[in-house]
Amino acid sequence: MIFLDNASTTKVFDETAKIALFSMTQEFFNPSSLSTFSFEVAKKIEGARKVLLSVVNAGSCFDVVFLSSATEASNLAFNSFAKDHILVGAGEHPSVFEPARRLAEKNNVRNGEKASMVEFVPLNFDGTVDFEKFKKLLKKETTFVSIQLVSNETGAINDIGKLAKFAKSVNPNLVFHVDAVQALCKIKVDLEELGVDAASFSAHKVHAPKGVGALIFKKNLKISPLIFGGGQESGKRSGTENVPGILAFASAINIAEKNHKTAFENVFKSRALLLNELSKRQVKFRVNEAPENSPFILSLSFENLRGETLMHALEKYEIVISTGAACSSKKTGNRVLREMGRTADEISGNVRISFGALPLKREEILFVAEKIAVEVEQLSKIVTKVRRK
Amino acid sequence: MIFLDNASTTKVFDETAKIALFSMTQEFFNPSSLSTFSFEVAKKIEGARKVLLSVVNAGSCFDVVFLSSATEASNLAFNSFAKDHILVGAGEHPSVFEPARRLAEKNNVRNGEKASMVEFVPLNFDGTVDFEKFKKLLKKETTFVSIQLVSNETGAINDIGKLAKFAKSVNPNLVFHVDAVQALCKIKVDLEELGVDAASFSAHKVHAPKGVGALIFKKNLKISPLIFGGGQESGKRSGTENVPGILAFASAINIAEKNHKTAFENVFKSRALLLNELSKRQVKFRVNEAPENSPFILSLSFENLRGETLMHALEKYEIVISTGAACSSKKTGNRVLREMGRTADEISGNVRISFGALPLKREEILFVAEKIAVEVEQLSKIVTKVRRK
Repeated sequence: MIFLDNASTTKVFDETAKIALFSMTQEFFNPSSLSTFSFEVAKKIEGARKVLLSVVNAGSCFDVVFLSSATEASNLAFNSFAKDHILVGAGEHPSVFEPARRLAEKNNVRNGEKASMVEFVPLNFDGTVDFEKFKKLLKKETTFVSIQLVSNETGAINDIGKLAKFAKSVNPNLVFHVDAVQALCKIKVDLEELGVDAASFSAHKVHAPKGVGALIFKKNLKISPLIFGGGQESGKRSGTENVPGILAFASAINIAEKNHKTAFENVFKSRALLLNELSKRQVKFRVNEAPENSPFILSLSFENLRGETLMHALEKYEIVISTGAACSSKKTGNRVLREMGRTADEISGNVRISFGALPLKREEILFVAEKIAVEVEQLSKIVTKVRRK
Repeated sequence: MIFLDNASTTKVFDETAKIALFSMTQEFFNPSSLSTFSFEVAKKIEGARKVLLSVVNAGSCFDVVFLSSATEASNLAFNSFAKDHILVGAGEHPSVFEPARRLAEKNNVRNGEKASMVEFVPLNFDGTVDFEKFKKLLKKETTFVSIQLVSNETGAINDIGKLAKFAKSVNPNLVFHVDAVQALCKIKVDLEELGVDAASFSAHKVHAPKGVGALIFKKNLKISPLIFGGGQESGKRSGTENVPGILAFASAINIAEKNHKTAFENVFKSRALLLNELSKRQVKFRVNEAPENSPFILSLSFENLRGETLMHALEKYEIVISTGAACSSKKTGNRVLREMGRTADEISGNVRISFGALPLKREEILFVAEKIAVEVEQLSKIVTKVRRK
């Protein structure tokens, strides 16, 4: 199988899975118990915390709470910081977009008048947040901004440093949250340099198991928990910790970091090779990308076919791609491409090819290019024929 | 190691861990993606749902949402159903007690007057909920009741059937929620027979991994989600599902059910043997138990020693017991025993010995009894000496 849907989820590294396995069957103690054995587990969780904080250069003013998903992390950020006027990118992942949309529904009409607690910052044609419009929408009353570092749909990289700097110049007390899920272990993430206050991360996008996310936040900020109980995670998130998942998360980060240079180069070359091979084969497509784009995500729009059909056609070769974010698969159409001003045809002909840290061979990329070319030709013929009728 | 803290967490069954491992490294697809491979994973999650619903005899009027912990499950029940007047057992686990306490703090004073949105039902001396007091506290306006089936501190079994029947006779529309965490795969859990509307469960208490819980609820009830995003779990709980954990949960239930009779008998005998051996050795203790008690939990109060000291003293023999619920370890004292009217000495001398589905040998129990006897004698001598001074 050639798995090219790594933006949706990833295969857990073998070594990482072993860490999880050991935690499940050997060192399985409850970190909240008072025994010495439990204390060792609690210490390992603290170690995992340090691994994550360190890899994104979060200095001593930051702390991290482990959660069940990046979705929970971004929801926790909303629950804690989204007050008064807030700004959210129009292309955000549903984990940010949905809490924002709900707040907007609830609060954008106040006392019968149209207020606007939540405003969405339009996207450029290339998928990045429109900086000029961002500047116009930002007010002194803005207390919370949430913009993703890397678009999960197109890989477009937002200049978070610039956005955060401007936001803080208008309201120094504003909380800037970044969804860094598609950036972790892929492109450079330096929270100090970005100048943000909070960031969401997911384990299963970096070859660790599903069921773990994290919110990094500045220690001076007050977290308003979503879940109450035994007071785990310093009272910020109750419920027995997903220990195997948390330790596996740290393991995967360590492995990914160690091999990052090779993996990045492999992905960079694979992406370029694939595009080149598709062009050589005269396949008609458009790349939905920004000047600064993560090489890990390749969003393509083909003419005269439905992305979903192409995706299924490739399954017989055991090639796995996607039609866009898994999380938006239940909704109709692709909100993000629409926000980017793409045509209905470009949206319906869209597929997402996404790479991970496990290297691909040159022959695999050639195989994928060949099969895409064959299937695109077949499928567009059918569509053209139907249209003529 | 002899692990006797199974009420806090359990060792994952080897076979169950293999299921999780396969999901992490082989069938790792995102169940929300549109590919055929993902569809297979989604189908397996539906299978896991059926396993859980079936083992607790939840008929077709019930559904289940998978979450990250039983704490999240009970919080979700509160978020969805706790309106107007609610009744909560005074001995509930923090996952229920804390949301209730918070609601009480927020709402028990209304318009300057002392209202009482939340009331706690006192416990009997044996740890069960006081039925007479329950009857007095229950009003027509009561819309939500939450009582645990088995006490996580003492193993006392509440007659949920009787409580729910009475509650429904006063207000047929009331939602009765049961925390069934310490009952699943241990004693009989029959939701139809109990006549409840919702129930919380945890995977890591039944030899599945940490990071998975579930709320079973009647389909006609409206769930108000805590987490919003991609719309997973029918919109009731967004965020990529913890697939390895969920499939492992189902695996553990299947294994536990298959071996239930043997495991139950082993635990029953182990508990009786341990008590008998301690008595034979003239150890002074009191068993904190109810006439109907889960054999899986043994709450003992020793004289003239601190439970925590005994727990640590046993660590050198690799015997793991606890001083009470892991989740309450961060709080001072033992709320539940206090609610049961136990003395300060009984509370400070309390330990919890809890069994799981993995069978213990007769020699292991004899070893534990011997070491407890030795250490109790040592420790109570020290305390007595100190007191004399």
